[in-house]
Amino acid sequence: MKIDRFLQLFVVKEKKFYPLYIEQAVNIEAAAKLLVELLQERKPENQKTLYKKVKDYEHSGDLITARLYEELNKTFVTPFDREDINRLGSSMDTLLDFIHDAAKRVLMYRPKNVNQLMVAMAQCIVEDARILGQIMDELDQLQKRPQEINEKCVRIKQIEHDVDNLYEEFMSDVFANEKDAIELVKLKNIGQVLEDATDRAKDVSDIVRGIIIKFA
Amino acid sequence: MKIDRFLQLFVVKEKKFYPLYIEQAVNIEAAAKLLVELLQERKPENQKTLYKKVKDYEHSGDLITARLYEELNKTFVTPFDREDINRLGSSMDTLLDFIHDAAKRVLMYRPKNVNQLMVAMAQCIVEDARILGQIMDELDQLQKRPQEINEKCVRIKQIEHDVDNLYEEFMSDVFANEKDAIELVKLKNIGQVLEDATDRAKDVSDIVRGIIIKFA
Amino acid sequence: MKIDRFLQLFVVKEKKFYPLYIEQAVNIEAAAKLLVELLQERKPENQKTLYKKVKDYEHSGDLITARLYEELNKTFVTPFDREDINRLGSSMDTLLDFIHDAAKRVLMYRPKNVNQLMVAMAQCIVEDARILGQIMDELDQLQKRPQEINEKCVRIKQIEHDVDNLYEEFMSDVFANEKDAIELVKLKNIGQVLEDATDRAKDVSDIVRGIIIKFA
Repeated sequence: MKIDRFLQLFVVKEKKFYPLYIEQAVNIEAAAKLLVELLQERKPENQKTLYKKVKDYEHSGDLITARLYEELNKTFVTPFDREDINRLGSSMDTLLDFIHDAAKRVLMYRPKNVNQLMVAMAQCIVEDARILGQIMDELDQLQKRPQEINEKCVRIKQIEHDVDNLYEEFMSDVFANEKDAIELVKLKNIGQVLEDATDRAKDVSDIVRGIIIKFA
Repeated sequence: MKIDRFLQLFVVKEKKFYPLYIEQAVNIEAAAKLLVELLQERKPENQKTLYKKVKDYEHSGDLITARLYEELNKTFVTPFDREDINRLGSSMDTLLDFIHDAAKRVLMYRPKNVNQLMVAMAQCIVEDARILGQIMDELDQLQKRPQEINEKCVRIKQIEHDVDNLYEEFMSDVFANEKDAIELVKLKNIGQVLEDATDRAKDVSDIVRGIIIKFA
Repeated sequence: MKIDRFLQLFVVKEKKFYPLYIEQAVNIEAAAKLLVELLQERKPENQKTLYKKVKDYEHSGDLITARLYEELNKTFVTPFDREDINRLGSSMDTLLDFIHDAAKRVLMYRPKNVNQLMVAMAQCIVEDARILGQIMDELDQLQKRPQEINEKCVRIKQIEHDVDNLYEEFMSDVFANEKDAIELVKLKNIGQVLEDATDRAKDVSDIVRGIIIKFA
């Protein structure tokens, strides 16, 4: 029964869901790369252009999630599995929202100095996105090679742990050295959302790991 | 089968759940209107009185949610549908909590100057609440006129988008012009929760849209 | 049918899930006690040692949650009940994460003066943890004495309400009296996560109350 449900979901329905996840991962990686650029850009005009592009990706992401949700509501799948499909889509959308939020904060706050540790955290988000892209590409092979996918999920967990340490270092540095309270608030709020984004990437991989365990 | 479940839920059980949602929407609108007043009130004594009223609505909201949850646990409905009933109730309660939180922050922080953009954001929450009230009034007509209800959900999505822009404008303004770091922190934290509240209103309408799609 | 499911879950499977919940509650209480110590400690070296211990408990908590999740995925339980088992585990893990986060913030920010109200809030988290420990010890008696467990949940709700008031008092005090904006930001952010932690303790007890209602 369980295998049947699985086949229905991941083989027969493949054409519906997989390409949407893959498309979303591509979106996320593109937005994350722009965020890295934005953090290193000093000219307000260029910052605006970069932010606008991130916003476009975020909007595309909303549309992908809406399409996923509609597809889901048109198919007969059991509540439990459909829940995972939905959660996987939502979690990717949330990750993209956090990347967008980080970019928005750079525009809203215009911090005077961007700490190199912030750029390093944003680069970790790019790495998360790249690995998520690989996972989504292989999602139709979940049964054949769960170990490979699981290893990629472990890698995302490690990145989250690394960014926890980067964030601690960043915050300790900001609170020890930034004497302008307003600049401190700016940096703290941008750093926070960068760290949060890597937690959201881990949420995505946790959902994938849950699916792996169920169909092991 | 699906229609049967639907009838059981929304026709036979109508007397139990609908009035609770309607009552909650009335609560939310009343609290949101008080929040607008509170943001424009300068006298500490009047601010306290207004906040106390918001707190009373929040407390009533908790009781409504508890009653909804008890009713839900007494009825035989399928897990998936009961999940939506529960999530709809929880999401309305959360929206009310955010309105209460915004009011509480005004009292705790006592900002020197309340930006007009903050009042505008609070007015958008009132508008959200008004539309949610209409949706709840029509929820028993979900099958007969899904299109009308869906249009109201689209309107709430537009409000959320408008408030995103108001919030961006507000934050850019505060970070560019407020030179007192403590006042900046106050305004930032009140503005943040106002923006968050409109996201929570959209959460409510997203759940309604999900129910519409399922029973289309 | 419902009773059968219940028996399967809470009698037959007892050996798997109960000890994990109990172990997690012990973890949470230990971490909360260290947080109280940390808030009262002035020496950076001792602060580091205390934080490291909290971090170890948080790590143990992750492993317990992972074991719970694996056990859950190996057993045949109905989706609805398994959802509660999972949510109960996740909610305890989240509470522990918030305690860890509070400790981390003390280390990162190194506030000059720790308000006595912050210590009082942390002591409330210890009390929450102690009561959660009692609840978990009695969880296998859920059917025999739901009233006793429910009373403990009510007590956690009262603590959350008390801490709301402590937090209001704390924030009003900080915004009225702290003239150093950077110190204000530090205190605000530590106080916020202490208050949030008691909300998370209430989330745990809400899940327990939901289970009580279902099997009443």
